[in-house]
Amino acid sequence: MRSSGTDTSTGERRFGYRLIKEDGKAKRGELVTVHGTVQTPLFMNVATVGAIKGGLGAEDLEALGTQVVLSNTYHLHLRPGDDVIYRCGGLHRYMSCRTPILTDSGGFQVFSLAERRKITEAGVLFSSHIDGRKIFMGPEESMRIQSHLGSTIAMAFDECPSSRADREYVERSVDRTTRWLKRCREEMKRLNSFEETVNRDQMLFGINQGAVFGDIRIRHAREISEMGLDGYAIGGLAVGETHEEMYHILDVTVPELPRSAPTYLMGVGTPENILEAVARGVDFFDCVYPTRNGRHGHAYTSSGHINLMNARYETDGRPIEDGCGCPACRRYSRSYIRHLLKSGEMLGLRLMVTHNLWFYNHLMSEIRDAIDKGIYGTWYREKLAGMQAG
Amino acid sequence: MRSSGTDTSTGERRFGYRLIKEDGKAKRGELVTVHGTVQTPLFMNVATVGAIKGGLGAEDLEALGTQVVLSNTYHLHLRPGDDVIYRCGGLHRYMSCRTPILTDSGGFQVFSLAERRKITEAGVLFSSHIDGRKIFMGPEESMRIQSHLGSTIAMAFDECPSSRADREYVERSVDRTTRWLKRCREEMKRLNSFEETVNRDQMLFGINQGAVFGDIRIRHAREISEMGLDGYAIGGLAVGETHEEMYHILDVTVPELPRSAPTYLMGVGTPENILEAVARGVDFFDCVYPTRNGRHGHAYTSSGHINLMNARYETDGRPIEDGCGCPACRRYSRSYIRHLLKSGEMLGLRLMVTHNLWFYNHLMSEIRDAIDKGIYGTWYREKLAGMQAG
Repeated sequence: MRSSGTDTSTGERRFGYRLIKEDGKAKRGELVTVHGTVQTPLFMNVATVGAIKGGLGAEDLEALGTQVVLSNTYHLHLRPGDDVIYRCGGLHRYMSCRTPILTDSGGFQVFSLAERRKITEAGVLFSSHIDGRKIFMGPEESMRIQSHLGSTIAMAFDECPSSRADREYVERSVDRTTRWLKRCREEMKRLNSFEETVNRDQMLFGINQGAVFGDIRIRHAREISEMGLDGYAIGGLAVGETHEEMYHILDVTVPELPRSAPTYLMGVGTPENILEAVARGVDFFDCVYPTRNGRHGHAYTSSGHINLMNARYETDGRPIEDGCGCPACRRYSRSYIRHLLKSGEMLGLRLMVTHNLWFYNHLMSEIRDAIDKGIYGTWYREKLAGMQAG
Repeated sequence: MRSSGTDTSTGERRFGYRLIKEDGKAKRGELVTVHGTVQTPLFMNVATVGAIKGGLGAEDLEALGTQVVLSNTYHLHLRPGDDVIYRCGGLHRYMSCRTPILTDSGGFQVFSLAERRKITEAGVLFSSHIDGRKIFMGPEESMRIQSHLGSTIAMAFDECPSSRADREYVERSVDRTTRWLKRCREEMKRLNSFEETVNRDQMLFGINQGAVFGDIRIRHAREISEMGLDGYAIGGLAVGETHEEMYHILDVTVPELPRSAPTYLMGVGTPENILEAVARGVDFFDCVYPTRNGRHGHAYTSSGHINLMNARYETDGRPIEDGCGCPACRRYSRSYIRHLLKSGEMLGLRLMVTHNLWFYNHLMSEIRDAIDKGIYGTWYREKLAGMQAG
């Protein structure tokens, strides 16, 4: 489908996913992209408007071992505008980012943040949450914006129905999402053929929907799997259903997606969620927990989490986690970070986010090691037990 | 006076100021402290509550060539409490700071931030700006707090009279400040004699006051110069008087202070102010401009300042200043930083503060070079002209 990702002399694809090892249902893979090769399973670090919350820059992400950055199409379209970023040479140059970047489609934000939206077959008409101006976004618009941004991986424009939506609505919505996906694929093919496109090797991931209806999820997964995409995401989870419902959906859906492509579980989640989802075959994750929870003093450790706002840490000279190699734990104490958070000093949030992202990135590295060794099943249950013991 | 700073076998002082070179009235010196040796003239980077605004950590200050950090006694006394910092091993360990730290006396904040204050010969009774609780601070209390913090240099507790105060008030105030200074000196001597004191080599700088009355400034400068202190500050300037009044006060006051000790002009100022004050013999500076102005998009350059909020920078791919070696200019564009500031992203402020502090620190380095070469007088006038041309 994508001529730009194909070596014209041999006809071989230069970019794509390679399954390295299987351990039960867990997968160890790598994704070769125009912006470098990444090892899966991996956790994407969220840079909503082109920067990680907490004041972390590109050099910090490099120090944290970040493999892929996720940015939000909706936010960047509104501010500074994808045209501004295009004129600056694309999002990689704009952010000074040296890793692959995945951009979401904007769909999720349109459905959760935008005001007074109207869905038609063409797309969605909505009011900006910043200034209320009317904006139309459909599959073609989303692809054009993401092409302007020049991200490594673009996400298809989908509808993410509410987890409380009824069966009939979800069926109709999923069918539309499939039709939209075909339009996304055509539009990206067209955009990637232009000389002036920032990244002519942009990849496209489709998104599986179906709320908590297992049969709809299965049917939709089979439909999109036929489309020869660069990757497949599972959307619409972690939006209110129980963990058991989420794991059940993964149990029935992941086997219907190609194992020869990366599987991305969108917006998930806790370290426990990630360990469980990897056991079910998921490769890609993203979540705002490490940044959002850091703001409230919530620090992740391998024996569960601690909250630095607690008075017990007032004179605690130890790092957040003994033995942690992150830049925050190498120099700063719980007591100092607590003081910074309580004083509203930016450095406090930065150190929390630094530690929490390091924790997530390091967890993924441990996960990959366990799969490489073929011990994932026993290893992850011990890891879970350790976290719950804390 | 201070046995702890004296080598007991030879009677020689281990710590103190050495005048390296004079160029007109400009001085090149170095201050040897228990926390390392620094080169003057220098600009102290302000870490009010134990952290630089903008989320910069100790490792960033090292990358910016920061020589001395300034922290505020009043703020740290209220939060987290100097007892907390003492129990954590002092401010250097608490902040993970490897440079000398100067703490102010708390006096300036008591007079400018605290509420409902009452001044007596003993000290000042005031209400905290955080929770309104009553606090008493006098010379002994200020010295005890600064001794708890274990800073390299403690400032004497003084009264900073309003620049609008009448002559009679200023005379009485300055006399009290002299009596307070003697009490500070006695109390520090006592505190430095204790085994359990964090930094038994803590230095004491006295403060010259006198508002804009040249004769009061001169008389006070002569009085405090007799006291054999580690350094002498000029306080109560840059609080509403004109630049010409400030330069006049420096012209008459600096010659009355010992050239064999560092002279510190408190809270000053713009790059222009610093260039003029160095020409008049000042060694130490501090100011919140680089951090505070950074928040509003105000960036310093050698050809004047620019404001990144201006729409002309929307797609400007150049660094803040071409050729600048700061960590912000090495990787990020005006366009990107502008977007971050407009989006309220912490990284925007961090990059602004990084650039502005680098600019100030680099300016001081250029100033020292010019004095070393004996060309300060002509060099600084050219430098000023370049800044005003921009």
